[in-house]
Amino acid sequence: MLEQLKKEVYEANMELPSRGLVTYTWGNVSGIDRETGYFVIKPSGVEYEELTPDDMVVMDLEGRKIEGKYKPSSDTATHIELYRAYADIGGVVHTHSPEAVAWAQAGRDIPLYGTTHADYFFGPIPCARNLTPEEIDEAYELNTGKVIIETFTDRDIDPVFTPGVLCKNHGPFTWGKDAAQAVYNAVVLEEVARMARLTEMVNPDVKPAPDCIRDKHFFRKHGVNAYYGQ
Amino acid sequence: MLEQLKKEVYEANMELPSRGLVTYTWGNVSGIDRETGYFVIKPSGVEYEELTPDDMVVMDLEGRKIEGKYKPSSDTATHIELYRAYADIGGVVHTHSPEAVAWAQAGRDIPLYGTTHADYFFGPIPCARNLTPEEIDEAYELNTGKVIIETFTDRDIDPVFTPGVLCKNHGPFTWGKDAAQAVYNAVVLEEVARMARLTEMVNPDVKPAPDCIRDKHFFRKHGVNAYYGQ
Amino acid sequence: MLEQLKKEVYEANMELPSRGLVTYTWGNVSGIDRETGYFVIKPSGVEYEELTPDDMVVMDLEGRKIEGKYKPSSDTATHIELYRAYADIGGVVHTHSPEAVAWAQAGRDIPLYGTTHADYFFGPIPCARNLTPEEIDEAYELNTGKVIIETFTDRDIDPVFTPGVLCKNHGPFTWGKDAAQAVYNAVVLEEVARMARLTEMVNPDVKPAPDCIRDKHFFRKHGVNAYYGQ
Amino acid sequence: MLEQLKKEVYEANMELPSRGLVTYTWGNVSGIDRETGYFVIKPSGVEYEELTPDDMVVMDLEGRKIEGKYKPSSDTATHIELYRAYADIGGVVHTHSPEAVAWAQAGRDIPLYGTTHADYFFGPIPCARNLTPEEIDEAYELNTGKVIIETFTDRDIDPVFTPGVLCKNHGPFTWGKDAAQAVYNAVVLEEVARMARLTEMVNPDVKPAPDCIRDKHFFRKHGVNAYYGQ
Repeated sequence: MLEQLKKEVYEANMELPSRGLVTYTWGNVSGIDRETGYFVIKPSGVEYEELTPDDMVVMDLEGRKIEGKYKPSSDTATHIELYRAYADIGGVVHTHSPEAVAWAQAGRDIPLYGTTHADYFFGPIPCARNLTPEEIDEAYELNTGKVIIETFTDRDIDPVFTPGVLCKNHGPFTWGKDAAQAVYNAVVLEEVARMARLTEMVNPDVKPAPDCIRDKHFFRKHGVNAYYGQ
Repeated sequence: MLEQLKKEVYEANMELPSRGLVTYTWGNVSGIDRETGYFVIKPSGVEYEELTPDDMVVMDLEGRKIEGKYKPSSDTATHIELYRAYADIGGVVHTHSPEAVAWAQAGRDIPLYGTTHADYFFGPIPCARNLTPEEIDEAYELNTGKVIIETFTDRDIDPVFTPGVLCKNHGPFTWGKDAAQAVYNAVVLEEVARMARLTEMVNPDVKPAPDCIRDKHFFRKHGVNAYYGQ
Repeated sequence: MLEQLKKEVYEANMELPSRGLVTYTWGNVSGIDRETGYFVIKPSGVEYEELTPDDMVVMDLEGRKIEGKYKPSSDTATHIELYRAYADIGGVVHTHSPEAVAWAQAGRDIPLYGTTHADYFFGPIPCARNLTPEEIDEAYELNTGKVIIETFTDRDIDPVFTPGVLCKNHGPFTWGKDAAQAVYNAVVLEEVARMARLTEMVNPDVKPAPDCIRDKHFFRKHGVNAYYGQ
Repeated sequence: MLEQLKKEVYEANMELPSRGLVTYTWGNVSGIDRETGYFVIKPSGVEYEELTPDDMVVMDLEGRKIEGKYKPSSDTATHIELYRAYADIGGVVHTHSPEAVAWAQAGRDIPLYGTTHADYFFGPIPCARNLTPEEIDEAYELNTGKVIIETFTDRDIDPVFTPGVLCKNHGPFTWGKDAAQAVYNAVVLEEVARMARLTEMVNPDVKPAPDCIRDKHFFRKHGVNAYYGQ
């Protein structure tokens, strides 16, 4: 079932090593079919070189395996929380890409310093708080999702306009309209994280870019007045 | 029409990903035929892997499309301003290469710290000011070109001797006698930006190189007394 | 003899250049057969491009060559000390990978800043003390092993839970259940070293990750309650 | 003439781009035949992709071209000074590799922080002084060589034990017993420069490695008591 989606999710997963975002098996991508409510996710612990579309695991949003010979990614419960909370997203990605991890370990939002950032993320990329020991004990991966959602709610950030987050002392999650776009945003987040670090090295007193630049770049690519690209 | 120029501009565009200067579609190259006054530029939003010489768009300096099935790069108006102001240039490049973006986001000129820089740029690589909100609203890409030209005029910099600029909170533009040389200068600018950052890390109190070194290196490669290369 | 082990150790050695951990011949991997007490190690000074499984050298734990046409790696005595002290390990790796070397040359433990680290190392990666001039004169490579073991003993660190160390002003050693896992841990150590450096650049006042995150990540992958991976 | 040496020098030159040390044509390697007193050097301004062994230029130590269809590298006079002063060297390399350039532009010696450095360079890699305006005007490339030699003489450094130098605001020269070893030392210098920068980032107060470590590592690979490698 969902053979086309499995193929898309497989290809999105394979983009992670080819774009240099993952070492070994450190990443996972899922994509959802909103009609059935089933989503497809990478199996846990399988090497990318050995992965095939058939290895993808089909799950429902209650966390039940519908199809697949492997266990789903151990981060599956986080993906579920995001799909349940955000009806507009169709794909989710988690990586340990090093530049994004650096900001997550540092516990800092990535400031919006320029147009590369503003072309894809409408504001700082937020760093979510640590889970409490109780939240970790109770249900670590599920509560990771809850804390992401809490961050966007408390800070009144639109998850479609800012399609990514840093989990403190851990790493990034990104999302998008489908698995491919979620990977695209993971690549952008890593590049934006690198540029922000380099920017602060060159000028430790740098200020974020003016709002007018952020608005211009974001809205020439997104929304009803977009004119960028085909 | 202009089939040879389309081929050259196509190949110059393809240099950007192969030299590691662009992620996805984040860059564009154009080249001009000064006899007809037409220039050839990359189409907007087409992936590099799918690009062909035939996809290149032919434009005139009034911003009218002369030939091509795609829309021209959304930065076309900036290219036009540069071709109109600088009669000696034949190619223009824009990228979001990360080391150059870092200086642009930091809002700093790249100081001339050594001979790698002085071999191609006769002085600091200037960082242009931000556009005002009015300039952004009125005509963002065209005014980006105007602000570049203002920078070179106000600071009395010769654009042939310093064939590149940083647009604040955005990224670099470079140019040259043709599209290939404009790309060459984009590669040099990125490398010089990296070296300048590394230099300041190793010595935060570093001073620019002496003028006599700058003059020696620039003029052994450029101008009537050049003796470097074949 | 030990043809299968030679093949494994050969392949583990070849992982070092393909993972970007070594320049020229700067690294070595060994693997032990606990039944015979013999171990197999890379020969000294042979280029990776020319290496074959047959070139591997078979040694015993007294430092006597059992088989092989080449001299064993000059770091052989360090490997022996580790195999003698730690009965649970089956493979040892030494590299000069640059991010790990930076911490070794800086004389600092790598702090546990996040889950990438905690997935594989249960605590800071310790930096061992310098050898004394007497220890260097007497038996440099053997005493390098002794100082590693002293570090783990004095600081009460379990070498199975923290499968790597930095030798001051030198570089990393890692180990694992076999040669392949020892290489895996060398790759992780290099990546964790890079992330820790980037983290401190982004936030010079950063604190280590909370213990509850360390425990959760380490024990979901290791020990009797592990559920991560297949 | 000197067909074997041309081939060796050609191959040594081709190592520079394949090892990531040069962008475009920014580097040159030579090798000398001490019997005839002729040396072979890369031609000026020819792209690496187009280079052939036949393009190599044969020169004598008076700076006269003996054979070759191209002009020799514009740095030829620097190579000549080094061959004339140092009878024990057989190859010379110049690059603009970025980590070494950073130290040259910063005007700092590279401190000996560890064994990777001590395995090949017996002490700090010196940064030579700037040329005076008069020295530049008179004979830039020749005087570059003279200032290198002055540095080693004034500071009493043995050029065989420390086979490389940084020219201030410019970049590194290295040498060795032949062209291949000179390139090897250029690769090591770049890696050592990177490690030294990373080391200072991780610990700004770091001190050089103890002399006993330097001596042990240098002399286990060099001199009459060497036992490292085959």
